[in-house]
Parts: sequence; C-alpha cells; structure tokens
Amino acid sequence: MRQEHDSIGTLAVPEQAYYGVQSLRGQENFPITGRRLHPQLITALAEVKKAAALCNRDAGLLDPARADAVLRACDEVIAGGLRDAFIVDPIQGGAGTSANMNANEVIANRAIELLGGAKGDYSILHPNDHVNMGQSTNDVFPTAGKIAAIRLLRDARGELSRLRAALEKKALEFDGVLKMGRTQLQDAVPVRLGQSFAAWAAAARRDEARLAAAEQKLLVVNLGGTAIGTSLNADPRYLQRVVPVLAELTGLQLRRADDLIDATQNLDCFVEVSGLLKTCAVDLSKLANDLRLLSMGPRAGISEIALPARQNGSSIMPGKVNPVLPEVVNQVAFRIMGNDVTIMLAAEAGQLELNAFEPVLLHSLFESAELLRNAVRTFVDHCVAGIRAERENCRRMVERSAGVAAALCPIIGYERSAALAKEAVQEEIPVRLLAEREGVLPPERLQEVLEPLRMTGPLRCGA
Amino acid sequence: MRQEHDSIGTLAVPEQAYYGVQSLRGQENFPITGRRLHPQLITALAEVKKAAALCNRDAGLLDPARADAVLRACDEVIAGGLRDAFIVDPIQGGAGTSANMNANEVIANRAIELLGGAKGDYSILHPNDHVNMGQSTNDVFPTAGKIAAIRLLRDARGELSRLRAALEKKALEFDGVLKMGRTQLQDAVPVRLGQSFAAWAAAARRDEARLAAAEQKLLVVNLGGTAIGTSLNADPRYLQRVVPVLAELTGLQLRRADDLIDATQNLDCFVEVSGLLKTCAVDLSKLANDLRLLSMGPRAGISEIALPARQNGSSIMPGKVNPVLPEVVNQVAFRIMGNDVTIMLAAEAGQLELNAFEPVLLHSLFESAELLRNAVRTFVDHCVAGIRAERENCRRMVERSAGVAAALCPIIGYERSAALAKEAVQEEIPVRLLAEREGVLPPERLQEVLEPLRMTGPLRCGA
Amino acid sequence: MRQEHDSIGTLAVPEQAYYGVQSLRGQENFPITGRRLHPQLITALAEVKKAAALCNRDAGLLDPARADAVLRACDEVIAGGLRDAFIVDPIQGGAGTSANMNANEVIANRAIELLGGAKGDYSILHPNDHVNMGQSTNDVFPTAGKIAAIRLLRDARGELSRLRAALEKKALEFDGVLKMGRTQLQDAVPVRLGQSFAAWAAAARRDEARLAAAEQKLLVVNLGGTAIGTSLNADPRYLQRVVPVLAELTGLQLRRADDLIDATQNLDCFVEVSGLLKTCAVDLSKLANDLRLLSMGPRAGISEIALPARQNGSSIMPGKVNPVLPEVVNQVAFRIMGNDVTIMLAAEAGQLELNAFEPVLLHSLFESAELLRNAVRTFVDHCVAGIRAERENCRRMVERSAGVAAALCPIIGYERSAALAKEAVQEEIPVRLLAEREGVLPPERLQEVLEPLRMTGPLRCGA
Amino acid sequence: MRQEHDSIGTLAVPEQAYYGVQSLRGQENFPITGRRLHPQLITALAEVKKAAALCNRDAGLLDPARADAVLRACDEVIAGGLRDAFIVDPIQGGAGTSANMNANEVIANRAIELLGGAKGDYSILHPNDHVNMGQSTNDVFPTAGKIAAIRLLRDARGELSRLRAALEKKALEFDGVLKMGRTQLQDAVPVRLGQSFAAWAAAARRDEARLAAAEQKLLVVNLGGTAIGTSLNADPRYLQRVVPVLAELTGLQLRRADDLIDATQNLDCFVEVSGLLKTCAVDLSKLANDLRLLSMGPRAGISEIALPARQNGSSIMPGKVNPVLPEVVNQVAFRIMGNDVTIMLAAEAGQLELNAFEPVLLHSLFESAELLRNAVRTFVDHCVAGIRAERENCRRMVERSAGVAAALCPIIGYERSAALAKEAVQEEIPVRLLAEREGVLPPERLQEVLEPLRMTGPLRCGA
Repeated sequence: MRQEHDSIGTLAVPEQAYYGVQSLRGQENFPITGRRLHPQLITALAEVKKAAALCNRDAGLLDPARADAVLRACDEVIAGGLRDAFIVDPIQGGAGTSANMNANEVIANRAIELLGGAKGDYSILHPNDHVNMGQSTNDVFPTAGKIAAIRLLRDARGELSRLRAALEKKALEFDGVLKMGRTQLQDAVPVRLGQSFAAWAAAARRDEARLAAAEQKLLVVNLGGTAIGTSLNADPRYLQRVVPVLAELTGLQLRRADDLIDATQNLDCFVEVSGLLKTCAVDLSKLANDLRLLSMGPRAGISEIALPARQNGSSIMPGKVNPVLPEVVNQVAFRIMGNDVTIMLAAEAGQLELNAFEPVLLHSLFESAELLRNAVRTFVDHCVAGIRAERENCRRMVERSAGVAAALCPIIGYERSAALAKEAVQEEIPVRLLAEREGVLPPERLQEVLEPLRMTGPLRCGA
Repeated sequence: MRQEHDSIGTLAVPEQAYYGVQSLRGQENFPITGRRLHPQLITALAEVKKAAALCNRDAGLLDPARADAVLRACDEVIAGGLRDAFIVDPIQGGAGTSANMNANEVIANRAIELLGGAKGDYSILHPNDHVNMGQSTNDVFPTAGKIAAIRLLRDARGELSRLRAALEKKALEFDGVLKMGRTQLQDAVPVRLGQSFAAWAAAARRDEARLAAAEQKLLVVNLGGTAIGTSLNADPRYLQRVVPVLAELTGLQLRRADDLIDATQNLDCFVEVSGLLKTCAVDLSKLANDLRLLSMGPRAGISEIALPARQNGSSIMPGKVNPVLPEVVNQVAFRIMGNDVTIMLAAEAGQLELNAFEPVLLHSLFESAELLRNAVRTFVDHCVAGIRAERENCRRMVERSAGVAAALCPIIGYERSAALAKEAVQEEIPVRLLAEREGVLPPERLQEVLEPLRMTGPLRCGA
Repeated sequence: MRQEHDSIGTLAVPEQAYYGVQSLRGQENFPITGRRLHPQLITALAEVKKAAALCNRDAGLLDPARADAVLRACDEVIAGGLRDAFIVDPIQGGAGTSANMNANEVIANRAIELLGGAKGDYSILHPNDHVNMGQSTNDVFPTAGKIAAIRLLRDARGELSRLRAALEKKALEFDGVLKMGRTQLQDAVPVRLGQSFAAWAAAARRDEARLAAAEQKLLVVNLGGTAIGTSLNADPRYLQRVVPVLAELTGLQLRRADDLIDATQNLDCFVEVSGLLKTCAVDLSKLANDLRLLSMGPRAGISEIALPARQNGSSIMPGKVNPVLPEVVNQVAFRIMGNDVTIMLAAEAGQLELNAFEPVLLHSLFESAELLRNAVRTFVDHCVAGIRAERENCRRMVERSAGVAAALCPIIGYERSAALAKEAVQEEIPVRLLAEREGVLPPERLQEVLEPLRMTGPLRCGA
Repeated sequence: MRQEHDSIGTLAVPEQAYYGVQSLRGQENFPITGRRLHPQLITALAEVKKAAALCNRDAGLLDPARADAVLRACDEVIAGGLRDAFIVDPIQGGAGTSANMNANEVIANRAIELLGGAKGDYSILHPNDHVNMGQSTNDVFPTAGKIAAIRLLRDARGELSRLRAALEKKALEFDGVLKMGRTQLQDAVPVRLGQSFAAWAAAARRDEARLAAAEQKLLVVNLGGTAIGTSLNADPRYLQRVVPVLAELTGLQLRRADDLIDATQNLDCFVEVSGLLKTCAVDLSKLANDLRLLSMGPRAGISEIALPARQNGSSIMPGKVNPVLPEVVNQVAFRIMGNDVTIMLAAEAGQLELNAFEPVLLHSLFESAELLRNAVRTFVDHCVAGIRAERENCRRMVERSAGVAAALCPIIGYERSAALAKEAVQEEIPVRLLAEREGVLPPERLQEVLEPLRMTGPLRCGA
C-alpha cells in the first residue's frame, strides 16, 4: 500500500492502483448502486481531459513532456483501457467531483508511470494542477455527460429507425388486408391492416426526429466555464480552443454555451431531452398495447395478427404462447417514464451557481437511452419483423360488424342509419341485407356504398 | 370604500366587504386559478377559529362579549354564510397566510358588526389579536386542511363502498356464467364471470380500508404549535383544551401531535394519504380497463359483457355505443396519479421549520378526493349496476379455446399436453375430441377432467 | 320542456335550451369536476364548425340557407355568445363526443331559431347531418383542442417574454454588484449579481423558444380524417379545403397531418408539448428557489437581495415579510409537473384507432398553460421588477469568504492553496492577508490576483 | 452442447449448463438491462420450490426420491449456490415465466445430476411436471417477489432505525443550543437545535413504522392460485399446506390471500408499499435539504451546523468541503420517487386475470429498497453521527434577529409589535433595546418576555 493525502487526511491506497486517495474516499462515501460509472461516461471524461491537455500544451501552460504523458494516458482510457481503476459509484454526492477526480487520478498515475515515476508521486504530475488544469468538475462532468448521452441516444435512434423500417415493410405487406377499425374498443369502420402499420411507422418516424432534436439540445456545453461559469483560472488561449478541439476529437458538433454561468447551473436541456425520450416511450407503449390487443387469442379473442412464437408462454398452461416482446417494451417504457420524473426532480433541485444532482440525472438518462435501444432492438428482431396477418379473422370481423352503416349517413341521415345499425346488431344480420330488405337504396347502389374496402381510401402504390 | 392599513401600507376596501386589507392583498397577489378556497376548507377554518375562541374565553384571555361575537360569526360561516367574503385563490404563496387572514378578517368584521361597530374598526375586535389569538397560520391552516380532507375522503370512501357492494351483487348474479380466463390477453383457463366481479370487489374492499387508514393519518394535528411548533404565545390553558374542543366541534377524533415542531414542518402524512388515493386509482383504472376489454364489440370483439348504453357513442358512426363511464374513471385515475406527483413535490419542498407549499398540496388532495367520489358515484349508478353478461359469447369462447388442456398436465405431463393444445388450435377442433381420438384417457374420464366448470372451483353459496 | 330523442331514448329538454338531448346525457353522465368546457375550447369548436360549414356549402353539400344559419350561429359563439348552453364537464368519457355534440346541438338550435324554426325541430337542421357534416368527434375535438392550446401557450409565452425582459433589466442594474457565488450551498468564487440575473434570463429565453416550438408541434391537425383517419363520409372537395379555411379563420398556420390515421390515434405531440411546459416549470422553480435563498433573512440569513414586501407574512409574527410570489411560482411549477404525468398517462392509454382520453389530457394541458401564464405575470409585476440588491451584505460575504483562494491554484498549486484556504476559514482572516503573511507572492501581485471583481469576467457594456 | 426442445423447437444448450432451453430463450429474447435476477429473488424462488416439493411429496404426488433430489437442489440455491445458472434479465416479458422456468430448469438439472442422470434428461425429472408441480409462474413469481421485497425492506428499516437513533442522540446533545427558527426561509422565532433534530427523528420514526406496515401488506401471497387464482392442477392437500410450509421455511408470517383470483391480477399492494417508500424518501430529502441549508457557508452563509468533512469538495476550489452525503441522499430520494411512477404504471397495466408487468415492478421496488438502505447507511455513518453545532453562529443569529418581537403580541398587540419589529430590522438594533427605549414595558419584564430560550419551551430531561 502507498500513502496518499488530501485536504481531509492520509489514506492507504493499493500499491498498483491507478486511482488515488480521492477516488477511494468517493468509493467509501458512496456505496449506493454497487455499479461503476458508465463506460461511455469514462470515455467522454478522457476525451475532455485530452482536449484540455492539448489546449493547455498549445497555450504553453502544460509542458510538452507532461502533456504527452497525459495524452497517452487519455488515449488508453478512450481505447477501453484502465477501466478497472474507475471505482466510484454512478450515484454520488458532490456534483460529480468523485468521478472527475477518479479520472484525474487515473490519468495522472498512468502518465506518471509513463514518465518513469512511481504511482502516487504527484510531484511529477498532479491530478489537479496538470490533468484538471483550467477545468472544474462543474464544467467537465456535464460536458462529458452530454457526450455520453449523445452517443447513447444515437444508438437508440438507430434502433427506432430499424423499427420504423420494419413497420413500413409490414405496411406494404398488409396493405390489402381489410379489417375492422375500432375506437374506444368498439367496432368503428373498416381500415386496412397495412394502414395500421403505416400509422405506427409514422409515429416511429416522429420519434426518430425527436431523438435527433434531442441530440441538438445536448451539443451546447459549458466546458471552459470552470467552477461557476466565470471561467476562473482558465487561460484565454485554452478557453478559445478547448471546445472546438473537443468537437474534433469526438466527432460531435459541440459548441460553447453563450452564457456559461447559466449553462453551469441550469440543467433544463436534460429535462427537455428526457421529455423527448418519454414521448418515444409513450408511442412505443401504445404500439405494444395495440399489438397485444390485435393478437388477443388464439381462440377466445380477435386474433387479427399473430406474433412470432418466441418461447413457451406458461409453466402450467401447455401450448400457450404470449406476446412477450411487446410486454418487455411496455416495461421499458414504464421505466423511462419513471426516470423522467427522477430527471425532472434532479434538475429542479439545482441551487444558485450549480446543480449538484447531475450524477443521478445522468445515471437515469443513460439508463433510459440504453433501455430504449435494447428493447427496440429485440422487439424489431424477434417480434415486429415476423408478424403475420390473420386474414381470415380480419375478414370475418368486418363481415359481422355493423360499422359500415356509417357510410349510409350522408345518404339517409344519421338517425335512420343508427336505427339500421342497431337492428343489424340485434338481429345479427349484415347491414347490407337489412338495408336491402328495407329498400333503403337499390341493391347495386347499396353494394357500392357499403363496400368496406372503398371506405378505407386508396391502396398504397405497389402494395 | 373604507381605508384599511397593515404593515405594507393602506388600501381601500369596499365599504360592505367582510374581508379586509390582507385578504385584498392576497387576492391581488395570487390571481392563479381563478377559483376560491374549497368550501370544506372554509368550514374547517371557522371551526378552528371557534374552538380557539372557546378556549381563549375559558382561559380568561378573550372577554366574553368579544368571544360571543366571534363564536356567532364562526357559526354563520360554518352554516354556509359569508362565503362570498372568502376571496383568495386556493393556490397562494405564503403557506396559507392569506387564507387564514381572510378567515380572521371575515370573522372579525362580522363580529364587529354584531358588536355594533363598523366594519374595519379593528379597535373593537382585531383579526390578529382576537380572532387569531394563540394561533398561527402555521398551525391553523394544516389543521383545517386535514379536517376538510378527512370529510372529502369519507365521501369518497362511501362511494367506494357502494362500488364494492355493486360488484359483489354482480358477483352473485354471474356466479354461474362460465367464461375463458385470459392471462397476457391470451386464452388461459376457464373462470366464472362472477369470480371476476368478486375479485374486483375484493380490490375495492381493500381500497375502502385504505381510505379509512388515510383518515387515521390525518387525525393528528399541530394546532397549538403556533408559528413553528414551540407553542409561542399560546396560553397553557388554551393549549391543553383546544384540540379536544375542536374534536368535539367537528365530531372527528383529532389529537395533538406528540412533536409539534415536527408536525409543523413535515407533511409526509399527506404524501402517504395521496399514495393511498393513488393506489385506489390504480385499482379503479384496472377495473375500468377490464370492463372495456370484456365489452369489446359488439360484433368484432369478444363481447363477454354488455355495459349499459348511456349515450350516443359517436357523432358520425350511427348506433355506436361506447364505454364512456369506464373511460371517465380512467381519466380521473390519471388525474389522481398526476396529483400524487404534485403532492410529493410540495411536501418535499418544505424547508426548516415550515412547509410553505401546503396550499397547492391541499388543493391537489381535495381535487383527488372529489374526483374519486364523483367518478365512482356515476360509475356505479350508470354503469356497474347495469352490466349484463353475454352468456352465449362467454360459453362459445370456452368451447373454442384449447386452454382446458392445462387440466391434462398432471395426468399426461406438460409436454404431451402442449402438443395436444397446439394441434387443437391449429386444427380448430376441441381438445376433448382430439384427446379422445388419440386415446389419451377413456372418454368418461376425459369428460370429467376437461369439464370447464370443474376447473373454476366451487360455486358461491346461494348463487 | 320539449322532448328530444336519440338512439338511447327520449329525454325532456328545457324549452329555451340551446343544447339538446345528447348534451343533457353528457351532463348527467359526467358530473366530475363541476366545471364547464374551457372558453377557448368552445371558441375553437365553433371555428371548426364554421370552417366545415363553409367548405360543405362551397362543395354544394350544404344548402346556402342552412349554411348561412350555421355560420351565423358559429359567429355568435366565437364572439362569446351562447356560452351558458355549453353544459358538459371538461372531463368526460367518450373521447370528447359530448363536447362535440354539445357544440353541434347549440349551433343547430341557434341556426334553427335563425331559420324561424322551433328549437329541437331537427327536421329543419340536424346537429349530426348538417352541423357535423363531414366530421367526427375524432377529428373535430383534437383539432379544436390544439387551437385552444396554441392560444393559451401564446399567452404563457408572452409572460415568459416579460419575465426575461425584467430579468435582463435587473442584470444590467446589478452588473456591478459583487457577491459570492455558491456551489452546493458552499462558498465558491465571486460572481456579480447581474450575472446571476443574466443567467436566469438566459434560461427564460430558452423557455420562450420552447413554447414557440411547442406551438409548431400543435399546428398539425387531423381535421378531415373523420372517424378513424380514413376520411370516411368526407367529400373530397370539403377535404381539400377545410384545413386551409380553418387556418385562415383562426389566423394560425394549421396544416393537415400527412397520415390522418396516425394523427387520430397518437397523441404524442401533446406529451412533447407538456414536456416542454414542464421544462419551463423546472427553470421557474429553480429561479424561485434561488430568489428565496438569496433573500433569506432579513437578519438571520444572507439577505443578498430584497424582494418587494407584498403582504404581511404572518398572522402571528409581526413585521415578517415572506417571499410569497416565488412561493406561488413553485406551487404552480409543481402542478405543471403533476399535470405532465397525467398527460403522459392519457396519451399512453390510446388504443387502436383512437385515444379516448383526450378530455382529461386537454383539461390538464390547458390548466398548465394558464397557471404558467398567471403565475409568471404576477411574479414579474409584483416581485421580479421590484427586487433590490443588498449591496452591503453582498460585499461583506465576499470579504469574509476564502473562496478567492481558488485564484491561487494556477500559481502555487492546488495543495498549497487548499492549505491556505483551510487556515483562512479556521482563523477567520482574509486569504489575502494570510497569503501575504506567508509570503506566497509579492503584495501587489497578490492584490491583483485576489481581486474578486477580476475573477468574474468583463462587465457588461453600458452597465 | 446438448440438444433441448420445447414447444418452440430445439436449441443447443452448453453441456455443463444447469439452465435449459427455456432459460436460454428468455436470455435471448430479453437483453434489456444486462443484469441478472436479484439474489434475494433467486433465494425466494428456491424457497417456494422447496415448499412446493415438500407439500407435493407429503401429498403423495411427488415420489420421495425425486422430492429428495429437488429439495437438495433447492437448498444449494438457497445457500447461494448455482447462481451462475440464473441467466435471465430482471426485466423480461412474460410475467416472470422466464425467471420461474430458469429456476425450474436449474433445480431440475441439479436434481437430475444428484439422481445420477445427465443434465437435460428430463425423463428422469421434469422442470414443469416435477419442479413446478402444482404451481404456475403466476403464483410463484409474485410470491417470491414479496419474500424478497420484505427482506430488502427490513434491511432498509434497520438503517432508518439507526438514523432515528443518531438523530435522537444529536437532539440530546444539542438541546441547549439556541438558534433562530425560520419559516419560508425568513427569520421566525427561536428554537433549539436539539428540537430540530428531535423533529427529524420523529419523522424518521414514522418512516420506520411505514416500512413495518409495508411488510404487513406483502405477507399476503397468492401461492396455490396457480394460473389465474382458481387453483387449477393444485392438489387440495398441497394447497392446504404450501403457504404455511413456506412461512416456516422463510421465517415470515406469510398467509394465503382470501381471494386468489384477485391476488393474481391486482398488484395494488406493491403500489401501496412503493407509496410508503416514497414517503420515506420525501422525509429524507427534506432532512438532507435542511442539513445542507443549515451548513451553508462556511463564511458566506449561516453555518449553524458543520457536517463532517468527508472528501475534497472541488477539483478547482481548494479547501472546499461540500455536503456530499446529504446530496447523495437527495439523489436516492429522487430515484425512489421516479421508481414510484414506474411501479404505478406497471400495476395499472394489469389486464384481466394477470398482470404481466411484475418483472419491472419488482426490479424497481428492489432498487428503491436497496438504494434507501445504502444511502441511509452511509448517511448515518459518514454524516449525521458527526454533525457539530456552530453554537456561536447560532447565538449571533438569534441576537441579530427581530423575530422575538412575536412574544410582544399578546401584550402590546400585533400592530404595535409589527411596527417595532420593522424598525428594529431597519435600524439594525435589538428589539429589546428598542422596546426599552420606547417604554413598551418595564426593563425587567421585557427581559423576561423577550428571553429567547423561554420561547422554545422546556428543555429535555437530562439534556
């Protein structure tokens, strides 16, 4: 063990550990989730440190030897190395200071090692003075959090895009499948199954656009603001370049906030982003609910569609197959909705020059994005792509229903149409036969007016 | 107009107004909802003022003449009088001070009038010194809020009780109606419609108990704590008697909190109560969803039950009847769930010796209780009581389904039963016929094992 | 009383009533909130009816005499007339059918009257066949809801704009007021009070932009989709013109959704809009919290600012003045946050071709927009505009604090600076004196480095 | 690899794996969180399986050899063995079927091994026919979930109990420390720091009681109900004994629900329990907020208390120490509040005879209980126990404040007291001096009336 000290006192750190005393205190103080920082957050922290080192070096503030060592250490972390040394919990007090110091210490110790020194010998290279030069947790942590969130949201968006494409494919495949439309779960008027899939696809397309818009909201960062947004201790040469350099390193079109004091204390952009994720979750949950409804059966329901059988549905009921993929989509949606409340609470709790509750905010946002990505991926691959239309059931329902009577309204009026529809349901005979019997219109005209397919609008080209 | 002054300055008050300068400032500061204080809150405020006046009089602190006038004024308010003089908005800053001062001023001015004075002449009787004697907004307002909430919750509980009774009646009526049970919206095993209603009734019974428990949580009040719970300016003789007197006046078993400082700053009891209301809302929403599902139809669904037709279902689709009562229950449930978040936020925002956010908390809690009462009332009267079983549809579904194959598991094992069930669904023939054809068991034994009614358990006595 | 009938049966309607049987059933079924439809919703319903009548007339479907009567009736409603005849509750089952039929009946009966007929004689002009011609509740109600929401959001945006301007004015006024910045409520580094106001103004500017973006989301309507989005019973000539005509009538750039089936069943746009409102609420609540913190006092706090005294703060504590305006802003924020959950729940509950839960969704959305407007208006007028800086207190805190030690880090390193800061706090002496005593830097250099104003960045032009 | 088949088809399973084909399909279908079932849930599943095997054996349904093997396998799992074989994700579709089948397969394969067979040879002992005998996922999974939840809640309660004790200890320690009370963050009247701690302790005591009450709600299980609560395929002898046996095995006073159909489809008990957890979170967050407020400083705040310094507070501001433990408590509270929404959504989504969304519900509930436990533990150990009173600061604030003027109200009236208080604040002189100067009362009487300690009530015995 080596001894390390900070303002609080001295602590023994394992000899070989890349982390240092402050990481260790963070770990000890926050045994909350039992998990580690998100890998994307660690990567982004290293990218921020790298950008800072480059700019500090170019500004003549960090000597080339130290800078070089720091840059190499950052590159190792970015490449996925040294991850075991990130020991602090994602939910931590202190606005992310433990996470930032964990990064500072790991990079410092690896750089010291590269410079030929012994870990913990911060006289060679100091976590605060050199790795954290010109920075503060309060600009580093939210900036890294945004980079990580953008990448996770892109993954999620990619899956939404695949979902949209899968739904559109089904929309074409099922364009000719006539079925009953239902409003308030009651027979309404005919629709085509392909139209239903096209409608869900349209919602998914909006959701893709939402996640693209969410990304835009996150591109504005406060790096350079240091402690409270006044850029204290940040050299002007560093300040001018650090965000553009970070943008280049990450490949993201990051830009500096106009008002760094605002950007350091207000986390509304995350609330907005979470609101967009939640909106996607609402659409997904509604889609999952609809698929479960339409596949209700197999014999005691409506069975208008059949979902792929993916696993035994029951440990006691033989032969049962359940809509397990839509069900997991619902559950993920519920989780994203709950996380939206957590994120709102964390953002609202900011006080004066800082919001100290970013760790739980980011933890929840990352979770929402990842759950969305994971659930949509398996949903597309194992459910949507394999949905079959139960054409015969769809057709039978349309024939049984009196919903087509709506088409008579413009001709014979609402009240007479209503009487016909009521009678058709009670006597269980088709509206057309009844209308014919009552001489409502000539038979050929009735045939035309009551043709269900006509009521659904034009077929899609090529379908 | 008469001139009134307070620490802020002087303001013109309409000559005939019973309210005074502080009410007027409150009204001017808080044009938020456009509504007035809840009638039950006004009543409860007057009851608190009455109890205080009685105890201050008996303690010799308030002279009999003034006390008598105050008591008469309180009685008028309790009887429903002077309500136009309560002019402040239910959502107000200031922890309820405007509401409390509105009550103090109205009662003072009415008492002054009874004493032969001119409204606004507070030398005769002062809103703060006499009506508010020994009190603070900080003990008066939450105490009155609890009294009002208890009464609203009792009303809601009464309706839940009627719902439970209506469901139990239907449980008996439908006890012999065999139908398919469904898990995950897929055919499961038989159940009786009466059992479904009994299950919903069981949940409603728990909900009744929840609201009874909620009432218990609200009986503990902080009256006597005055400003911050230290009972500053409250005479010991007053202090000893005011809660028992209030309990007698209201007919509620109110008792003083053990720790008045705690009771003045922590509003957790309201969060707990709202959590109970929300739990009721979850049960109600699930019930409403189930009724809507089971009545899906009339021709293109399962139509296992029929809800009473209450109104035309559509402005365009003739003859359509929709489950409008369950739908309004769902909507009220959503509102109660949203209010639960508001209440949580308000309670969490308390700081140090007080929670200033009680007005919005009470406003939301009152709304939840009233919506629950109103929605359940119309739901019972206009929907539940008139539900009919569609016995034929129920029977047909059971016959079509392969769910009964589960009963073969203990005899021929899960795997063979599963194969049978799968085949029965694919070939659309009854499991029993298939099992007979394959010689699974002797026909009489099969008949017995696969009898659906047997699978549902004993019939209810008298049903 | 006159007798009216619908599919359910016959009901007595007051002779002079403009509403009819279906409104009456709606009223009877839904005694939920005790309130009426929002005035803006009624106006918007009448505008939709007017646009439809114009287009149906021009398409030759509605004869000019009837069309003219309907148009005049609509104009009366738009002008604020006939409002007593709108009797249904804003929270109603049936996806808004009662609201739509209430509009249809009122307009029909007024038109009948204008045509010289007796109210209730629908042979002259029928609520469904003529007023509702080519429409369905399912396209009329959400379209009207969006129009109403847009107008309410514009009002709210106007107030946010005033808030932003008021904050900016204060930012200039207080640009020279040096104070301590605080992170995590602990002394951090200096900032200027004007910078704090500028930061809040920056957030308010984003919120203005959010409400403008929200409006864009609501401009896409499904009018023309009729029952389920297939445009059944809507004449092509009507269909082509009805949305542009409505856009012209309302002055809003409404446009028809690309996929009307999607637009009829998915309410995600409202979830997104509520998410934006909630984000504004988060910013407002944080601002209110900050103002309350900075004005903490008057003697036992930090009192860096003074809020205008608006009313007596206590019924028991004389001379007390409380931050009642920020407090009401917090409460409104909590309500908007709760409504966001309700709106999410309502949107998620849509099933298949329709979402039946729009009434509670719109009710909650309208409330959120109005509360925001009302709270911000009184907040600006009665609080923000009158905030004063307590310059002396601000200055004293800066002097007392050891936060300036951060400026020594780049010069003497983090560890030595930390030791200095610690000692300065313990010994209660200024960092500068201590640094001078310990010979850290030459006195003039220290003076320069530790000058607090320098640490806050450039002063704003003209301030 | 060995080949295993189920109703879906055949799959290759690693030769040495204790899990089987159904676990594998579950794993493939649900790559959602990347995590495994909670250890407590696995333990509880094994306990349920053990109880079932005991009862089935005693009822003569399961032969002693197989029963013995199953029991031994269960014991191994309960002891912490075979955990690697539990491969399914905690968030899964299918109402927990994958989790239950994972348990059935692991126990079956281990039992087969103990019986000398080869893993996967289910002719020896079958996961469904023998391990799952008389059971269904639909009774096993929620029963196990409740057992796990009870244990986690007990742990959480233990920590709340330690928190309460720590607060009570401080209440005694600080009973003599006079300080200003604050309402709405404005100076109110004096209180003793010990009283503040006693108030927080009182809330914590209620929270302990809440978690004890929560446990009671979870003791009612539906084991024996099998698929939908009708107890299909459960032998009466098994049915009679299985819950008592499970109670004995687990040491928990479990009892069977009166209505098993209700208990299988309604998850309201979990909503209620989460509501109680959320109420605790509200109290904890308020306490954390208060501690952060009172320790605001060290120099530019009020610093009435000092929290233990646990780690460097900043990477840029030297010497800064932040309230990191209260901050992590806030964050955990936010997470519990978000989970409460998720749990509500999952419970509300139940349909007909089952709620398929238990996996996400349990996942969220377990997380809430664990986070509460973990956060409170570190909060007590690393913060509360080491809080110090800043007596001098407390005293000075009381002296500076005009709040004591409230004590003059009963003597000289509200209005005159208010004028005095206002003047005292403006002139920055003590109320007592001013009152003396103005001859309000004789000096000795003033001294007595305005003695702050007197205003706070009696000192606690022994303090």
